[in-house]
Amino acid sequence: DPYLKVFTLNSNPELTQQVTDQIGVEMGKSSIKRFSDGEIQVNIEESIRGCDVFLVQSTSEPANEHLMELLIMIDAMKRASAATINVVIPYYGYARQDRKAKSRQPITSKLVANLIEKAGATRVLSVDLHASQIQGFFDIPVDQLLGEPILSKHFQDKGVEDTVIVSPDHGGVVRARKMADRLHAPIAIIDKRRPEPNVSEVMNIIGDVEGRTAIIVDDIIDTAGTMTLAADALLEKGAKAVYACSTHPVLSGPAIERIENSNIEELAVTNTIVLPEEKQTDKITQLSVAPLIAEAIIRVHEQTSVSTLFD
Amino acid sequence: DPYLKVFTLNSNPELTQQVTDQIGVEMGKSSIKRFSDGEIQVNIEESIRGCDVFLVQSTSEPANEHLMELLIMIDAMKRASAATINVVIPYYGYARQDRKAKSRQPITSKLVANLIEKAGATRVLSVDLHASQIQGFFDIPVDQLLGEPILSKHFQDKGVEDTVIVSPDHGGVVRARKMADRLHAPIAIIDKRRPEPNVSEVMNIIGDVEGRTAIIVDDIIDTAGTMTLAADALLEKGAKAVYACSTHPVLSGPAIERIENSNIEELAVTNTIVLPEEKQTDKITQLSVAPLIAEAIIRVHEQTSVSTLFD
Ligand SMILES: Nc1ncnc2c1ncn2[C@@H]1O[C@H](COP(=O)(O)O)[C@@H](O)[C@H]1O
Ligand SMILES: Nc1ncnc2c1ncn2[C@@H]1O[C@H](COP(=O)(O)O)[C@@H](O)[C@H]1O
Repeated sequence: DPYLKVFTLNSNPELTQQVTDQIGVEMGKSSIKRFSDGEIQVNIEESIRGCDVFLVQSTSEPANEHLMELLIMIDAMKRASAATINVVIPYYGYARQDRKAKSRQPITSKLVANLIEKAGATRVLSVDLHASQIQGFFDIPVDQLLGEPILSKHFQDKGVEDTVIVSPDHGGVVRARKMADRLHAPIAIIDKRRPEPNVSEVMNIIGDVEGRTAIIVDDIIDTAGTMTLAADALLEKGAKAVYACSTHPVLSGPAIERIENSNIEELAVTNTIVLPEEKQTDKITQLSVAPLIAEAIIRVHEQTSVSTLFD
Repeated sequence: DPYLKVFTLNSNPELTQQVTDQIGVEMGKSSIKRFSDGEIQVNIEESIRGCDVFLVQSTSEPANEHLMELLIMIDAMKRASAATINVVIPYYGYARQDRKAKSRQPITSKLVANLIEKAGATRVLSVDLHASQIQGFFDIPVDQLLGEPILSKHFQDKGVEDTVIVSPDHGGVVRARKMADRLHAPIAIIDKRRPEPNVSEVMNIIGDVEGRTAIIVDDIIDTAGTMTLAADALLEKGAKAVYACSTHPVLSGPAIERIENSNIEELAVTNTIVLPEEKQTDKITQLSVAPLIAEAIIRVHEQTSVSTLFD
């Protein structure tokens, strides 16, 4: 189909390659270079006139660089007369700044939505938005894909039994509920207090974990403070073993060290964010969202429903 | 005046300090930190409700980081109920991508204008926009201040005589004309060909430079290839000595080395872009635009005309 084109930027070239292989299209020809002063220079090296273009880019670290690459490429695609510009953002960065927690804070998550729209995107596909409200920050259609089925399947395939699915906070209960339903398991909730960003606190467990294998599930794993402390608290309350999973492996600062030194048996994540070599350890298993994204792209292009995907 | 507040971001804190000193106001209290994953976290530490806020930030290298700081701070200021958000951008980066030179290129300069406006800026003040057309990329008022009087005054104060003002390309003739009028000097134009960005080429001089002291004037000095080759060409045509000046010292890549090894006696620039220590050499003189910006801020706040400033 000459009217379907998939392009990558610098955040996830391998994932995009998997997606194009899966769909059976060539990767769109483009390049991103830097001028001598560091300004971004994008080049689209084939005609996209009248095409449904899918542009894959996570706004992962370095978030500002990745976001600007995305915005500049959207601008170029708009001016190159693409029919639709569908932005595939496996990891939507700045998602945690989605409300004013204190006065005079920005709502960067909404700002970024505005910027993407203003640049000329006509649709957004993303995986596990930190808050579903972010869909409402856009005035263009947003399809939210879910990492949960991929993560659940991993533990099913592994044969982990007698599980209890643990949400590390109250905001994650809906996500934990989904996984618990699929794995026919009960849920538990960690009731914690976080005094400052990137600092974790005392853990109190709501629900019964005794004699069960706990699987902690979260959307983002960042500094891993919460997860590793939660693992200790779960073992203390009688859990047999603790596994963890998270769609987006941000894994900043002390994360890898904490996981390595923790009581977590295994951390399963997806490839919405690339793990550089120094973050690849035996404890971390990375699962691909390529089949999910490929299927979503085909459905959007064929104009069939995406919302029923993997429910 | 409690309704006039001036804030800085990370590109030009010293310049902003000079500006607030000149106006006689305290620097606005704010901070910019980074979350563990590198995302920007801004804090406005005093009320700005109902105020005319002036926010100083050049989108100089690292352009993407500086731009995102600016956009996020504008968002925070808008949500903190500032009456007006006046963005002072001494150096407007991405200005050279202001048209499609080839097909399927972005017009990043317009994109950036859209982003700044969408974030919530109500007015822009900038110095020597690379192309005056950039004013038209905004739908909000844009005041363009000129570096030329500051640069001209420097050479007048120095007592440089029998000058010829040289524009390094056809696009810069208007700027050279202004300086020539002020210094009662003739002009000359370098007629060059540039095969690729950041690469310079053969120089042909239009106008008489024999026996005169040449002053090359440009808005941006980036890799300094054009300027240093122009200096050689001017000496070859009989110029007595060559000075150079430029409002915006981008000075990327081989620039400093080229200037040091060149026949240019002195390069005068302004502080729209901070020169890190390794770029400060005996040949480079940096002049402050603080008086210009301070005066413009006062006029905007008092709602008197800015356009007559330093004509
Ligand atoms: N990149 C980030 N890293 C750590 N914390 C963040 C980040 N962005 C925003 N936050 C903070 O995280 C909190 C929201 O997280 P949550 O409660 O998980 O939605 C707010 O207090 C934000 O200020
Ligand atoms: N940051 C940059 N560094 C060097 N060249 C650039 C940069 N941005 C844009 N350009 C190129 O500079 C040319 C325009 O410069 P000018 O003719 O001086 O307006 C175009 O060919 C642009 O592609």
